[in-house]
Amino acid sequence: VESVVLVRREGVRADASPAAVTKSAKVFPVLLSGGAGTRLWPLSREDAPKHLIPFLGRHTLFEQALSRASDPALFEPPIVVAGAGHRFLIAEQLKGSGVSGARIVLEPVARNTAAAAAIAALFVSETAPRGLVLLMPSDHLIEDEPAFRAAVRRALPAAVAGRIVLFGITPDSPATGYGYIRMGEADAGGARSVAAFVEKPDRATAEAYVQGGKHLWNSGMALARADTLIERFASLEPELLSFARTALEEAARDSNFVQLDQHAYERCRAVSLDYAVLERSEGIAVVPAAFGWRDVGSFASLWEAAERDADGNVEIGNVVTEATKNSYVRSDGPIVATVGVDGLIVVATKDAVLVAPRERDQEIRKIVERLKGKKERRE
Amino acid sequence: VESVVLVRREGVRADASPAAVTKSAKVFPVLLSGGAGTRLWPLSREDAPKHLIPFLGRHTLFEQALSRASDPALFEPPIVVAGAGHRFLIAEQLKGSGVSGARIVLEPVARNTAAAAAIAALFVSETAPRGLVLLMPSDHLIEDEPAFRAAVRRALPAAVAGRIVLFGITPDSPATGYGYIRMGEADAGGARSVAAFVEKPDRATAEAYVQGGKHLWNSGMALARADTLIERFASLEPELLSFARTALEEAARDSNFVQLDQHAYERCRAVSLDYAVLERSEGIAVVPAAFGWRDVGSFASLWEAAERDADGNVEIGNVVTEATKNSYVRSDGPIVATVGVDGLIVVATKDAVLVAPRERDQEIRKIVERLKGKKERRE
Repeated sequence: VESVVLVRREGVRADASPAAVTKSAKVFPVLLSGGAGTRLWPLSREDAPKHLIPFLGRHTLFEQALSRASDPALFEPPIVVAGAGHRFLIAEQLKGSGVSGARIVLEPVARNTAAAAAIAALFVSETAPRGLVLLMPSDHLIEDEPAFRAAVRRALPAAVAGRIVLFGITPDSPATGYGYIRMGEADAGGARSVAAFVEKPDRATAEAYVQGGKHLWNSGMALARADTLIERFASLEPELLSFARTALEEAARDSNFVQLDQHAYERCRAVSLDYAVLERSEGIAVVPAAFGWRDVGSFASLWEAAERDADGNVEIGNVVTEATKNSYVRSDGPIVATVGVDGLIVVATKDAVLVAPRERDQEIRKIVERLKGKKERRE
Repeated sequence: VESVVLVRREGVRADASPAAVTKSAKVFPVLLSGGAGTRLWPLSREDAPKHLIPFLGRHTLFEQALSRASDPALFEPPIVVAGAGHRFLIAEQLKGSGVSGARIVLEPVARNTAAAAAIAALFVSETAPRGLVLLMPSDHLIEDEPAFRAAVRRALPAAVAGRIVLFGITPDSPATGYGYIRMGEADAGGARSVAAFVEKPDRATAEAYVQGGKHLWNSGMALARADTLIERFASLEPELLSFARTALEEAARDSNFVQLDQHAYERCRAVSLDYAVLERSEGIAVVPAAFGWRDVGSFASLWEAAERDADGNVEIGNVVTEATKNSYVRSDGPIVATVGVDGLIVVATKDAVLVAPRERDQEIRKIVERLKGKKERRE
C-alpha cells in the first residue's frame, strides 16, 4: 500500500516540474530491437524474433513500441537499432505503422545493450549533441501509453540537468524474475536518486520489497542527454566507445538505413548497459511509474506476468495437466500433457517443443546455438 | 555370473525332461491383447494401441507374438483375447500373418488380466479340459524365438503335472522397472518353485538381485492346464469365475469371433492375474529363461530396456538435449529440446506431447482418461 501512495506523491511532484524544460527538450526515442529473443525459443526464432511477430495480441511488440514512441508533442521520429538480418521485417512494420521519418541503424552482429546505447548516443549527437536519448527495449509490454509518456515527461528535468534517469516500476506483485532498484532521497521534479541495484530476489525478499515501498522493478528503460551518455562511456568504457564511434563513422548510409561497419562494431565488448555503465555510475536517477509494464523476454517472466491458477500454473492453448504445479505450459500446436511436474516450462509450436525448469530458462539460448550449429554443419 | 550358470544348468535339466510328456501335450497360446497401452500415450492411442502399431521395428508387437506362437510342432492355433474396438486391426494382422485357425475372443470392456485368463481357461476347456494354456501378453518384446519355445518346452512337465508355471527372465541389468521373482528349491524338469514375488526394487536392491543370482524378472507369462487355472479361480475368485463363465456362455459366436456378453463380463472384478491368483497361491513354479525378453509397456520400461548414453539418456528421433540426465526423450514429429532436466520422459508425436517424471509414468493413463472425457463431452 505504501508504494502506491509513494507513486501518487511522485506524480504530483512531476506535474509541478517546470513546463519550460519540457517544452524545449527534444526526446529521441531509440527502439533497441537487436535481440533475437533466444530465451523464448521456440516461440521466438532467429529470423522471426519475438518482438517482430504478433506474439501477444494483434500487434508485434515492436509495433507497440513504435506506437508509444510516436507522440509528436514529445518525441522526435524514432531511431531503431536492429539486427541487419531483420531489416525487412523492421522496414515493413515501420511502413505499416504510418510512422514517418524513422531511421534504422543496423547491427552487423549483436553486441548487447551497451554498444547499442553508445551507438544511439553518438548517432543522436550528430544532429543534437545535447538531445535527449530515450533507450527503449522493444520487447517489453506497456499497457498504459499515456502513463508511459507522463513518466517520460516527469523524467525530463533531471535528464536535461545531465543525469541518467531510469524508469522504475512500482511492483504490484513479489516478482522474482526481475531486477529491482532501491530508491534513495527524493530529488526535484519527480525523480529519485538510485540507492542500489538489486539482483533478482528470492520470494521472501521480493515480498519484503513490495511491502517496504522502497523498491521498484528495473524496467531497463533510460533517458539521458546524448552528451551525458557519451561522457559516461568515455570514462567507463573508452574502448567500446571508440569502436562504436568508428563503426558509425565507417557506416554505409542511405536514406533510411545506417549499416554499421562490421569490422569495428564486432570489436565492441558485448556487455549490458546496466553492467557497463549504470551500476558503475554515481548520481543515477529513477522515476517511479506505474504504466502496466511487463518484461516478456523469457518464459520465467511470462509466467511471472501472467495470471496463474490455484496450482500456480499458466496454461495456454491445447494443454492438459495432471498433478502439475507452478508451471508454464503452452501449445500453439500439438496437444501437450504434463503429469506430476513442478516448476517446469513446456512450450510447443507446430514444429518444436521446449522442456526446461523455470529457473533455468536463461540456458535456453544454448539450445538455439546448438540448433544453429547443426544447421550450419548441414549447409 | 552365477545366474547365467544357473540358467545353463536348468537348460540341461530341461533337455532331460521326458520327451513323451512334451509330445502328447497340447499348448494353446493365448495372446492377451486387451490393453490399450495407455501408459504409452501419445505413442499408443486407444484406437491404435501400441501392440497393434509398428511400434518397434517393421512388425507390430502383436504380429511378433503371433509369430513366436505359431510353431505347429508345439502350439495349437492361437487364441486372441482383445478389445472389441480392435477387432478389425486384429483380424487384419492375423490375416497378414498367414496364421490359420486362430480364434478371437472380444472383450466388450477391458477387465484386466485375471478376467482375461479365466475366459481363456474356460474357452480352452470347452474342447480340451486338460489342455495347456500359455498366457502371453502381446505387448512384450522377445528377441530369441527358438529360446522362447525351448523355455515353453522346459515348462511342460510341471504344467502337465498340475502346476502353474511362470517364466522368469535372468536379469542382465539391475532394472528397477520390473517385478522380480525369487526362486526356491529346484524341481524336476527345469522348473523351480517360486519363493516370493518381489515388487519393483530400488537401484541398490536390484543390483543385489543381479549379483545374488536368485532373482528373475517376472515376465508376466504363465503356462498351466485349463482345469488347473479354473480350480484356482474357483477357490480364490469364485465370483469372477462365475461372471466369466456366464460371459462366455452368453457370448455371440461366429466362425472366428467370440463376442463376450457385456452384461456379465463387466461384472468381473478388474484385477491382475498376479494379484488375484499367482501371489495368493501355493506351489507356483518358475522356469528361468533368457530369450531377450523386454517389457515395453511403459516409458520407464522402454528407458530401462534401451541403450543409454553416458548421461543416462535415451534419445530417439528429432531431439536436442542440454544438461539433461537419465531421461527418455523421443520425437516422431517436432524437434524436441530439453534443458536442465533429470529423470524426465518427454515424448512427442505429430499431434501430441507428453512430459512426466520417469517414476510417475503409471499416471499417464489419467491423462488418457481426461482426454477421453473431453472428447465425450464434445460429442
